[in-house]
Amino acid sequence: VGFTVEAVGRYGTWLIADSVEVAGPLSEALMSAGLVADLLLDVDTGLGRTGVEPQGALALAAEIAGLPGLRLRGVLAHEGHLYGYGADHLGLDAEAGEASRRLVRVAEGLRAAGHTIDVVSVGSTPGLAASPCVAGVTEARPGTYVYNDGNQLRLGTCTLGDCALTVLARVVSVHAGRAIIDAGSKAMSSDAVSAENGFGLVLDVAGEPLAGVSFSRANEEHGFLTGPGTSSLAVGDLVRILPHHACATVNMWSELVAMHTDGALERWPIVARH
Amino acid sequence: VGFTVEAVGRYGTWLIADSVEVAGPLSEALMSAGLVADLLLDVDTGLGRTGVEPQGALALAAEIAGLPGLRLRGVLAHEGHLYGYGADHLGLDAEAGEASRRLVRVAEGLRAAGHTIDVVSVGSTPGLAASPCVAGVTEARPGTYVYNDGNQLRLGTCTLGDCALTVLARVVSVHAGRAIIDAGSKAMSSDAVSAENGFGLVLDVAGEPLAGVSFSRANEEHGFLTGPGTSSLAVGDLVRILPHHACATVNMWSELVAMHTDGALERWPIVARH
Repeated sequence: VGFTVEAVGRYGTWLIADSVEVAGPLSEALMSAGLVADLLLDVDTGLGRTGVEPQGALALAAEIAGLPGLRLRGVLAHEGHLYGYGADHLGLDAEAGEASRRLVRVAEGLRAAGHTIDVVSVGSTPGLAASPCVAGVTEARPGTYVYNDGNQLRLGTCTLGDCALTVLARVVSVHAGRAIIDAGSKAMSSDAVSAENGFGLVLDVAGEPLAGVSFSRANEEHGFLTGPGTSSLAVGDLVRILPHHACATVNMWSELVAMHTDGALERWPIVARH
Repeated sequence: VGFTVEAVGRYGTWLIADSVEVAGPLSEALMSAGLVADLLLDVDTGLGRTGVEPQGALALAAEIAGLPGLRLRGVLAHEGHLYGYGADHLGLDAEAGEASRRLVRVAEGLRAAGHTIDVVSVGSTPGLAASPCVAGVTEARPGTYVYNDGNQLRLGTCTLGDCALTVLARVVSVHAGRAIIDAGSKAMSSDAVSAENGFGLVLDVAGEPLAGVSFSRANEEHGFLTGPGTSSLAVGDLVRILPHHACATVNMWSELVAMHTDGALERWPIVARH
C-alpha cells in the first residue's frame, strides 16, 4: 500500500494499521527485509474515517500481535469530528474528552489482554485544550497548531496574533472596482472556501485586516479582491492573505519563507508533498 | 511584478499587460537589460477579471507603444465567463462568438490607429467550438482541452472517452460501509467540489464508472468512498478518480505518468507549479 520497507529501516518510522489486510503485507515485507517495526493500532473514536471501532480493537490486536516483524506499541486516533462543533466550545471540549476516554479504554483493554501499550496518541487542533488532559493520553498531534489559520480563528481556538502563516500577494490589475492579485487557487488551495469567507482574510503587509476588502473569488493564478476598500489599492501594492486551511496552503508551495523575530528571513523547503 | 528579465531574453517570452502601471516597469527593466520583448494587450471581453475594457484599449495602446523595450504585437482575452452558461450550448456558442468579435473589433481599431497587430488570441475550453471560428482570430488557447475533466464532461464539451487524466488510488481501509482511499484533497485539489459531484468521478482501473460509488468527502490524505457499490471494494483494490478540474489536479503533483497507446509508461515532471 505505497509502502517502502527501506524507509522504515532508515527512519525508524512508526506504522499504523486498522486491519489485518494492511498489517499482513507489512509483516511480510518487513520479514523479507529482516526488519522489525513498531506499530500503532488506528482506532475510530468518532470521526468515521479510518480506524477499527473500539469494540473490534481487541480481536484485531490479537491478530496483529501474532504477525512477525511488527511490534504492537500503542493506539492512535484522529478526532477530526471535533471540527463539527464549530464555536460550541463547551460541546467541543466535552466530546474531545469523551473521544480520548474511548481511546484510553481501548488501551486499558489491550493491556489487560497482555499487550504492552506505551503510546496513547490523540490528534486534532480544535481538541487541543481538552483531549490531551485525559489521564492515560501520552501524546497529542495538533497539526494546524503549528501555524493556526482562518478556520481556527473562526472556531475561536486562536487569535489573529497567533496566526503565523500568510501568502504575500501583489495587486497586478485594477479595473471597475476590483483589484486582481497574483495569488489564486494555486497559491491558497480551494479548501474551506465559502461565499461568506472567500478564499482568505485580506491583511495589509503589517498583518492588520484591510477594512472593506474581500477575497471573494479565485481562478488558478488570479485572486479577486472586491468591496469598497479596494479603492485604496493600486497596481504594485502588496497584501497578505491569511489562509482558511494552513495545511492545504503550505502544500501548494515548494518553499516557505520563515521570519525570525529580528526580521531575518530563512527559506525552508517543503518536502513532504506529492 | 514577479518579473524576471532574464527569462524574457532566454525564452522569448511574450508579455501581457492591461495597464501602463504594469507596462512601465516592464519597459524600464527591459531597457536596463538591453532587451526588447513582444507584448500583447490583455482585453476584457466579458470575464471581468484582468484586461482593459474594449473602449479603453486604444488609449492604453498609444501609451504602451511609446514605451521603449516593448513591441505591441497583438491582443489577448480569456473568455472564462463562458463557464457560466453550463450546458446551455446555444447560449454558450453565441456568447463565445460575441466575445471573439469584441476582441477582433479592438484589433481592427488598433490597426486603424497605425499599430501592427499580428496576434488576436482567444482562450477557453468551453468556447473552443465557437470562439476561434470568428474571422480575425489567429490563436486559441484552450487549457483544459489537453486532458478534459469532469467539469467539461458535465458541460457536454467532451465525453468520458475524451478524458485523459485520472488519479490512481488504492483502498486502504474498509469499515461500516465506507471505503477510504489514499487520495484526498492533496491528490485531487478541492476545486469544483460539490455535494452532488463530490471530489471526482470514481472509475475502475479500466476507466469505466464504478456503479453506486461516490467520492463524497475528502480530507488531506484520505478520500471517502460511499454508496452501495462500496460493498464490492476491499483493502488493496485500485480505483481511478476522474478529477473535476484537471488543471488544479495536475498542480497537486510533481510528476505525471503518461501512457502511450501501446501501454508503455513515461514519467513527465510537472515543472510550472509554485
